[in-house]
Amino acid sequence: MRVLVWNEFRHEKSKPEVAEIYPDGIHGAIADFLQSEQIEVRTATLDEAEHGLTEEVLNQTDVLLWWGHVAHDEVRDEIVAKVHKRVLEGMGLIVLHSGHFSKIFKQLMGTTCDLKWRVADEKERLWVIDPSHPIVEGIGEYIELEKEEMYGEHFDIPAPDQLLFVSWFEGGEVFRSGCTYQRGKGRIFYFRPGHESYPTYHNSQIQRVIKNAVKWVKPESGMMTNYGRSEPLETISDKELK
Amino acid sequence: MRVLVWNEFRHEKSKPEVAEIYPDGIHGAIADFLQSEQIEVRTATLDEAEHGLTEEVLNQTDVLLWWGHVAHDEVRDEIVAKVHKRVLEGMGLIVLHSGHFSKIFKQLMGTTCDLKWRVADEKERLWVIDPSHPIVEGIGEYIELEKEEMYGEHFDIPAPDQLLFVSWFEGGEVFRSGCTYQRGKGRIFYFRPGHESYPTYHNSQIQRVIKNAVKWVKPESGMMTNYGRSEPLETISDKELK
Amino acid sequence: MRVLVWNEFRHEKSKPEVAEIYPDGIHGAIADFLQSEQIEVRTATLDEAEHGLTEEVLNQTDVLLWWGHVAHDEVRDEIVAKVHKRVLEGMGLIVLHSGHFSKIFKQLMGTTCDLKWRVADEKERLWVIDPSHPIVEGIGEYIELEKEEMYGEHFDIPAPDQLLFVSWFEGGEVFRSGCTYQRGKGRIFYFRPGHESYPTYHNSQIQRVIKNAVKWVKPESGMMTNYGRSEPLETISDKELK
Amino acid sequence: MRVLVWNEFRHEKSKPEVAEIYPDGIHGAIADFLQSEQIEVRTATLDEAEHGLTEEVLNQTDVLLWWGHVAHDEVRDEIVAKVHKRVLEGMGLIVLHSGHFSKIFKQLMGTTCDLKWRVADEKERLWVIDPSHPIVEGIGEYIELEKEEMYGEHFDIPAPDQLLFVSWFEGGEVFRSGCTYQRGKGRIFYFRPGHESYPTYHNSQIQRVIKNAVKWVKPESGMMTNYGRSEPLETISDKELK
Repeated sequence: MRVLVWNEFRHEKSKPEVAEIYPDGIHGAIADFLQSEQIEVRTATLDEAEHGLTEEVLNQTDVLLWWGHVAHDEVRDEIVAKVHKRVLEGMGLIVLHSGHFSKIFKQLMGTTCDLKWRVADEKERLWVIDPSHPIVEGIGEYIELEKEEMYGEHFDIPAPDQLLFVSWFEGGEVFRSGCTYQRGKGRIFYFRPGHESYPTYHNSQIQRVIKNAVKWVKPESGMMTNYGRSEPLETISDKELK
Repeated sequence: MRVLVWNEFRHEKSKPEVAEIYPDGIHGAIADFLQSEQIEVRTATLDEAEHGLTEEVLNQTDVLLWWGHVAHDEVRDEIVAKVHKRVLEGMGLIVLHSGHFSKIFKQLMGTTCDLKWRVADEKERLWVIDPSHPIVEGIGEYIELEKEEMYGEHFDIPAPDQLLFVSWFEGGEVFRSGCTYQRGKGRIFYFRPGHESYPTYHNSQIQRVIKNAVKWVKPESGMMTNYGRSEPLETISDKELK
Repeated sequence: MRVLVWNEFRHEKSKPEVAEIYPDGIHGAIADFLQSEQIEVRTATLDEAEHGLTEEVLNQTDVLLWWGHVAHDEVRDEIVAKVHKRVLEGMGLIVLHSGHFSKIFKQLMGTTCDLKWRVADEKERLWVIDPSHPIVEGIGEYIELEKEEMYGEHFDIPAPDQLLFVSWFEGGEVFRSGCTYQRGKGRIFYFRPGHESYPTYHNSQIQRVIKNAVKWVKPESGMMTNYGRSEPLETISDKELK
Repeated sequence: MRVLVWNEFRHEKSKPEVAEIYPDGIHGAIADFLQSEQIEVRTATLDEAEHGLTEEVLNQTDVLLWWGHVAHDEVRDEIVAKVHKRVLEGMGLIVLHSGHFSKIFKQLMGTTCDLKWRVADEKERLWVIDPSHPIVEGIGEYIELEKEEMYGEHFDIPAPDQLLFVSWFEGGEVFRSGCTYQRGKGRIFYFRPGHESYPTYHNSQIQRVIKNAVKWVKPESGMMTNYGRSEPLETISDKELK
């Protein structure tokens, strides 16, 4: 399986406290724990040519992970269109944290994807809502994060196909933190945690969820569809309108 | 309630056989049967200024019906953006037949909305799948149309929130013909039948479904959401990361 | 509309602190705020003959509300079967709080309906997840209850058709507190709050949700289904198996 | 993986024309094509002691397939209760054809599971609705069966979690022929075709679907839930009701 971790990669360059947590970038941290014998991981970032998302790269990608925050608008529309096309063709997509406001996620959802937020060093507890889903395998009842950014309802998304996590926040809010969607032939998983100023992607349970999700969103083989004008499969009677 | 029926209104001008069936345009036929004491109906068409969809008109619309076919590309993106915004704010939307390929429907769905099709004067039978849904009230077990265009699966849409009709076609195909979606605060109903060369919108059961749907997609009063930075509702403890 | 409020009515008789909050029983309190010009409300309780749920009473009921807790097992199976039949025929059902473990709810869900719980005078905040649903009309962003029993995930129910509320609890848990289901021709709403030792049903927002829900679960008119052996609607060809 | 194929096994004994198609019983035919290096297949039938479904057998079963028709009522309630418990604990269940009226399926669904039917040697075409689902892997756009029993809508089931197939019938009906459900920790797949008087289970595409389904419904490892009274995870403040 070929996985591509895409990161905006701006905070790590401009904020020393982020660079300290993620010296190789958020993409580097994620690539590091995903790499295995079964999974070939590459990374791409916003400031590379074509954001590192050439058609060739996309065509060789089974699963794409997406982290962005301050520079969603700098992602070029024609690149987003290529990613969108690939998802509908079957490429799996995992949208992380502030990626909820990325062009690609909004285009796939059709809604504003807006939410409440607050950065206040508060506790988050992600409760498992669907304990037998492959994405939560090995997680137990909940994941506790000592400090995270808060995201609160209402989250303006289509009702998820499957709701896997709901977060409890110390400051009093809740949030649908793990959501799956099918769009075209592609599977999508949105996973809430991962603010750049906290070491969330170093948490082993968070890593487990992302590893499980990579396996779950990967495309099936042997998918087939035909569209457009079609010859009838049965004889159509000659008739007069009554 | 204020209803706006939007029609591309091209076939009626270029094809005499369509004008014969719909002398006042498809929009005229639909407006005609929707008009009532409770419902104020207006119409708008592609070739009007701003396609008849000015901000003022949209702001005064509770429910929008959309019929388009050959000129989807001529609908200007900034108008589509305004319609999209209004749906997410709560305006109900009913997408009819070939409107499946309209910009507004594709933007709300996030998928290609592609399908199979064939014009062969064949019989369609729309079976009710959800007999207690308000949109099928008074319809009975199925609607039979002596001649219609065929639309066949696979229909590339997100799984509908509610599946109300599945069509049987004489030529051997099936189709999810009545689908509801919630997007933002807006309710959406996609309803398949209505090819321009058949008198489908003169059928009393089809009219009944559309009347029911207008009532069902209309916005609720008293909807409320807040987004953006939020103060905590509970005290957040001072703490050190363990 | 004819509404029937069913209550186990045991706590109110055995515990003075409950009787103080609900001197006319929980059913009395609910009947009181539901009664209106449009709604005729009756009540029924466990210790009445046939639990107050004779076939005649059920046949004259459009919407049934159900509160039970310590005596689920005393509800006779043949009465449950009659209620079940009526729900599948279209009678609306609102299951309140500890009714999650009632025979009728478990039979309709097909699962254990188990959950976590704790009575600790803790704060509950019910966040609205689906702000445009008729059941949350007029509620705003959330309902806050100063003291309630905690119910926590995992809640062993089928994924709800629509998820309307998620609760935040002071002690650290979350819960799917407002869930809708369609079963047969009947609509079902499960609504979590309402422990007998707290004045929850005197809260005006809780009353608003229940009033909205009564309107939403009430049966449609003109529903129609046929089952069993059916004559073909089209000619079936004579053929030999290839 | 340990798979158990359960069959009523009555038609094969009483009707020579069925015995001719399935000389080893429907269970024998299914077991035959499921058997592989990865899958250990056993069978059980109604007339064995405890219907072949002892607690020991059930505890050693990962996936159960169920075919029944004329003798649903002879399946003892206490055995059904054991199967139900095992499904909620995670055992996968595949319900075949007339199993729609089995006690176990009705108990899991909570509805009547009624439908229309007709045996008239008519053509069925099962259209794939969800082309990227693992259960339809390798199937193409549809499966065509020259002769089958007709099942028609309305099918009185809860809306499926995922709708995989819709059937077209020569006589004019449609049917939701492939439906998935999650109940407790167990996955369920209902698959329509398989009337005893037709060689449906000898069809290689039907076999492919059933093989795919066995893999899809099998339980995940590492599922975990806790229910009942729970200590708080956060400090609950002392407070007075306002």
